[in-house]
Amino acid sequence: MNAEVCFTPHQLSLYPVEDSIVVVIDVLRATSSICVGFAYGIEKIYPVESVEECVSLVQKEGYIGAAERNGEKLPGFVLGNSPFDYMNPALSGKTVALTTTNGTRAIYAAKKEKAMKIAIGAFTNQQSLLEWLLQQGKNVLFLCAGWKDKFNLEDTLFAGSMVYLLKKYGYHSESDTAYASELLYVQAKDHIHEFLKNSSHARRLAHLNIQRDIDFCLQTNLTHVVPVFEKDYLYNVDAPHPIGSSLKMYATLY
Amino acid sequence: MNAEVCFTPHQLSLYPVEDSIVVVIDVLRATSSICVGFAYGIEKIYPVESVEECVSLVQKEGYIGAAERNGEKLPGFVLGNSPFDYMNPALSGKTVALTTTNGTRAIYAAKKEKAMKIAIGAFTNQQSLLEWLLQQGKNVLFLCAGWKDKFNLEDTLFAGSMVYLLKKYGYHSESDTAYASELLYVQAKDHIHEFLKNSSHARRLAHLNIQRDIDFCLQTNLTHVVPVFEKDYLYNVDAPHPIGSSLKMYATLY
Repeated sequence: MNAEVCFTPHQLSLYPVEDSIVVVIDVLRATSSICVGFAYGIEKIYPVESVEECVSLVQKEGYIGAAERNGEKLPGFVLGNSPFDYMNPALSGKTVALTTTNGTRAIYAAKKEKAMKIAIGAFTNQQSLLEWLLQQGKNVLFLCAGWKDKFNLEDTLFAGSMVYLLKKYGYHSESDTAYASELLYVQAKDHIHEFLKNSSHARRLAHLNIQRDIDFCLQTNLTHVVPVFEKDYLYNVDAPHPIGSSLKMYATLY
Repeated sequence: MNAEVCFTPHQLSLYPVEDSIVVVIDVLRATSSICVGFAYGIEKIYPVESVEECVSLVQKEGYIGAAERNGEKLPGFVLGNSPFDYMNPALSGKTVALTTTNGTRAIYAAKKEKAMKIAIGAFTNQQSLLEWLLQQGKNVLFLCAGWKDKFNLEDTLFAGSMVYLLKKYGYHSESDTAYASELLYVQAKDHIHEFLKNSSHARRLAHLNIQRDIDFCLQTNLTHVVPVFEKDYLYNVDAPHPIGSSLKMYATLY
């Protein structure tokens, strides 16, 4: 089995999408927040590309609205892109309509290119994702959401961590993207915060005062969920865990 | 001044091309070979995108033809893509028409996007290029030719080496591509051969038995040239050096 990495949705058509499970990665912060939402019992999430669609789903279907552009929650929406927004037991059983700058676009890029399956990955669900991928036994393509079609470091590091782990279970990589991702992850893994301090995204988000979001999103295995995209919705396909589980304790720290 | 990196011509339009000197990098092997050709006194090189154009220039203008596709010299051409082809004093004063899988496409991508200037970089002309860039005092965008629009490691390592060097002279980088390139270079610099052994390009070229080409292309400062693209031709704008200079000694090793 192969584990490959695509650095941005812009380049997705160059990779073998149709015979791969595509794992969409937007560590800061969409896919981290999606994992938290499912850990708190969200039933399903409808990712949409435009704010207008998101508003329409809130008004017509009664979905809970989540919208972010350029790092900020849009006015009038209940949820933004911060994982702390999603640490709310009132979300249990609810349906959320979600649009973000990069994450939802990446999901639709994977759909358009006819991915075999689409799943969601972040440091927060690393172990659950790994176990699920090993159960599936298929080629995996990690799709970094990046920032407006450009490469970013934090998504690449998470992709690299997954390549590193999958190789322990016999997966191979052919591409230099997978090789470079793994090399960067191995270099970074013992001091990821320090390593990312100079990344463009961390600098871009610095003025938004979301350091606690970044600290949260770089932690591994705080959720036991595997969000998978099927028929327009994301569902958690992992075995049920107590709502919030280890997250609850984490949230009380703030 | 900024030093940025674009991983593939496919993404060039996302970067600030018009106010930058674009340095095209195709370490294995086009830009390495171009440097060798100028070190051996080639007067100018006409890079063309198609084999047909290349043939036409040979027939109509009497240029020396150089053509490579998928790593191999095309039949009927004097020169291919190996730097050893270019270690020939008979090339002195001549004009070459050149087409390669990735390198010439990258030059035309930079032209199309209206680069302020276009220069050629490889490990073989690292120091001369650095000195010339410092003289220019402009923003620099390193454009990795990659492999058929995909990221590759050896071009990225050379881009990273230049970012690393330019930062010593006060240059800054904003992008994660520049940051990741530099991180990879710093990790690799004391054992670049070993580091690249698992790269896709090295594996792709392995069956062509060009290990000596790879060994050559990863060495620094064997040529004192700065090829610059002006009005359809590449010229060496560096101060004249004895033909071949340090290369002659190198060539005799083979």
